[in-house]
Amino acid sequence: MSFDHRDEHIDDDMLVIQANIDDMNPEFCSPVSDRLFAAGANDVYWIPIIMKKGRPGIMLNVLVQADKLEAMEQVIFTETTTLGLRYMRASCHRLGRAFYNVETPWGPISVKAGFYKGELVQYAPEFKDCERAAQQHGIPLKRVYEEVRAQFLQQRS
Amino acid sequence: MSFDHRDEHIDDDMLVIQANIDDMNPEFCSPVSDRLFAAGANDVYWIPIIMKKGRPGIMLNVLVQADKLEAMEQVIFTETTTLGLRYMRASCHRLGRAFYNVETPWGPISVKAGFYKGELVQYAPEFKDCERAAQQHGIPLKRVYEEVRAQFLQQRS
Amino acid sequence: MSFDHRDEHIDDDMLVIQANIDDMNPEFCSPVSDRLFAAGANDVYWIPIIMKKGRPGIMLNVLVQADKLEAMEQVIFTETTTLGLRYMRASCHRLGRAFYNVETPWGPISVKAGFYKGELVQYAPEFKDCERAAQQHGIPLKRVYEEVRAQFLQQRS
Amino acid sequence: MSFDHRDEHIDDDMLVIQANIDDMNPEFCSPVSDRLFAAGANDVYWIPIIMKKGRPGIMLNVLVQADKLEAMEQVIFTETTTLGLRYMRASCHRLGRAFYNVETPWGPISVKAGFYKGELVQYAPEFKDCERAAQQHGIPLKRVYEEVRAQFLQQRS
Amino acid sequence: MSFDHRDEHIDDDMLVIQANIDDMNPEFCSPVSDRLFAAGANDVYWIPIIMKKGRPGIMLNVLVQADKLEAMEQVIFTETTTLGLRYMRASCHRLGRAFYNVETPWGPISVKAGFYKGELVQYAPEFKDCERAAQQHGIPLKRVYEEVRAQFLQQRS
Amino acid sequence: MSFDHRDEHIDDDMLVIQANIDDMNPEFCSPVSDRLFAAGANDVYWIPIIMKKGRPGIMLNVLVQADKLEAMEQVIFTETTTLGLRYMRASCHRLGRAFYNVETPWGPISVKAGFYKGELVQYAPEFKDCERAAQQHGIPLKRVYEEVRAQFLQQRS
Repeated sequence: MSFDHRDEHIDDDMLVIQANIDDMNPEFCSPVSDRLFAAGANDVYWIPIIMKKGRPGIMLNVLVQADKLEAMEQVIFTETTTLGLRYMRASCHRLGRAFYNVETPWGPISVKAGFYKGELVQYAPEFKDCERAAQQHGIPLKRVYEEVRAQFLQQRS
Repeated sequence: MSFDHRDEHIDDDMLVIQANIDDMNPEFCSPVSDRLFAAGANDVYWIPIIMKKGRPGIMLNVLVQADKLEAMEQVIFTETTTLGLRYMRASCHRLGRAFYNVETPWGPISVKAGFYKGELVQYAPEFKDCERAAQQHGIPLKRVYEEVRAQFLQQRS
Repeated sequence: MSFDHRDEHIDDDMLVIQANIDDMNPEFCSPVSDRLFAAGANDVYWIPIIMKKGRPGIMLNVLVQADKLEAMEQVIFTETTTLGLRYMRASCHRLGRAFYNVETPWGPISVKAGFYKGELVQYAPEFKDCERAAQQHGIPLKRVYEEVRAQFLQQRS
Repeated sequence: MSFDHRDEHIDDDMLVIQANIDDMNPEFCSPVSDRLFAAGANDVYWIPIIMKKGRPGIMLNVLVQADKLEAMEQVIFTETTTLGLRYMRASCHRLGRAFYNVETPWGPISVKAGFYKGELVQYAPEFKDCERAAQQHGIPLKRVYEEVRAQFLQQRS
Repeated sequence: MSFDHRDEHIDDDMLVIQANIDDMNPEFCSPVSDRLFAAGANDVYWIPIIMKKGRPGIMLNVLVQADKLEAMEQVIFTETTTLGLRYMRASCHRLGRAFYNVETPWGPISVKAGFYKGELVQYAPEFKDCERAAQQHGIPLKRVYEEVRAQFLQQRS
Repeated sequence: MSFDHRDEHIDDDMLVIQANIDDMNPEFCSPVSDRLFAAGANDVYWIPIIMKKGRPGIMLNVLVQADKLEAMEQVIFTETTTLGLRYMRASCHRLGRAFYNVETPWGPISVKAGFYKGELVQYAPEFKDCERAAQQHGIPLKRVYEEVRAQFLQQRS
């Protein structure tokens, strides 16, 4: 199955999978996320929660297409300490996306733009590009980031 | 469409809309909430989360009637930085509500009461009224709040 | 209705019940959880949230079988301060479970194990047993906990 | 060393001890707190934090008299997984305290009151008393709690 | 006592005042902050914490000059439910500050700039100005905010 | 200046530097941490807080030797959006440390051990080693981690 992510679309066949975890070393969170992304998760995020007996637990959340449920379960059950998980149906609305190059004093930097009903509503410099430019040129990251945004804005108008 | 919010009721046609945001200045949260309420949201709340690469993000949550989905999307896509959102079906059970006036040394103050199967289970002084009374009379807010609760309790029995 | 929790199973008839609470003394959280568990909740947990006007609220979450909705509502409406709640359908996937006894220098301690498709994927010492052993013998809890895990691992291989 | 906690006082010889923990099973938090209180801590609390590599850690905080530092360190180093801790000097200002009995339909309940410069500024029903009364009489805890507060308020005026 | 906040400076005579609160209705947080600011606090912020018996509490933090300790205590003890507070010495390093006007299609908007050792390191549009412009002209707030930042950047270079 | 980190020691000349940030894109947190560590910070961590007007901000915390204050300020003022910071004196107590090699079916893995008054109180597999072994051998990370802990425990006794 394949579709073009560049067009705005709604996907009605998504799941939010959740597991409450109160007995796992938090160091494991990051590698668990990595494995879930590698197995096809659209998004992985963690929410601090308070569990039974006031334990400061953490809730794993995975946003994924319904047909990848089993792949997610495989990772969650073998890589975390949970004895159970739950999932709920969800629909996802994703903006149209396009990438642009912006010229800066520190080289070209990619900007991801989002379109809602054909109109530009979001634009964000690729963070990795900005980090690399900042490191190579020994300048503050936020200066690069701001410059790219300002340049993009100017080129659009 | 209109119905009387004073009666206890269940609304099966609600949505919880969510968007994970890791690249927005948090100052925007409050005006985004304002616009969502203005466009018809029943509730708006924010949950601190941990996103990809350990970024401290924030999850926007909107509780709203299903027929207002598009109005919410319009606000979320134009006022936040997200490139996508998701929504899940939900049912809401709301208590019957009534308002009472309670006389206090600092003037009348409104109390909102909640009824479950006809029985009074909640009562809360209107916070704005208490704040105004506290400010006008130069007394601690919590003293006003407590007094109103005690008066209401006494009048009921 | 009754089924054997020792087998791995999926329960498609679950609800996640939620209520946002911004005007309740947090001391009440723990007794509210107790009452919900007593009335049949499978899990109860609390999520710190930010509500209208920037109030630091807390979201009550209850995971429960759909046929216990009313019992949960009874507790939530009479024991918390909320004027409404919402619920969403969820499916739960629970691992097969078995209990083992592990011999330690401080007496036998129970270990709960989880099985995914028949394979052992989780094992955790019963926390209460470890606490009791640590207290009786005046040794660090983590030492008991570790010892039990190591013993279990050794006996399995 | 002993002094009367019933009088308002300032204690300039306090420490706040902190340890960032990102590799401990959160189940341990509660027994660690218990041991610290048993060893003389004035207060123990946990703060969710985000640590190196985006790990969702937790910061242990202990408020304690400076002469009990070593007793706290003994517990922290043997019962948690931390390899280090830090402490800062602090002064504590504690209100004068007194206890009152309030008669209720469910028996007498103790109320703790706080005095600032001789004036009553706080009063709170003993939570354990309220819980017991609520359980024995099968009534909502919040109803007991409110009744006690209202009674106390009435008796004072 | 008065000094010019426009120059970069270090203030060695500051306090961080803290109070852990687990029995206060969170609605009170915002008015408590207002009163503390009105009484001279430099900053007020709240940290979600987990207290004794796993209660989800909240820690009040006040950053203030040492000579205003008593004014802060007056507010904290009369407006919150705490029976005690603590404070620690702190030094504050504040950047030099200046305000600029930036012309935009929606009128002039003020920008606050920060200087470290004489060099511009921060600049931020006044949020209130941006909100007003966005509301008056019916455009997204983030568009105003971005435009102002881009204009400021361009005028500087 | 140099001393042997392998011995248990107390460092009385530490600072905790803090800055409350409510207008920074959270993507910046991770690179800011990297730069602070590169400039000599002992630890960097972030605490979710609620700031003025209910904004969900984040507090940057840096633990560092007092003589590196200026290097930290340079990074904080140029890489974050804050207009000010504060710092408090702290003492650090660090355990003695030693590294051991443990043989496993997946090759040798390093274990970091902590000593309090000469006694072993902590031991933790190097997380990076475990991750590498798990990836190379296609086995769950937690299995590697547990095996190493069990092996270390066995070799010690």
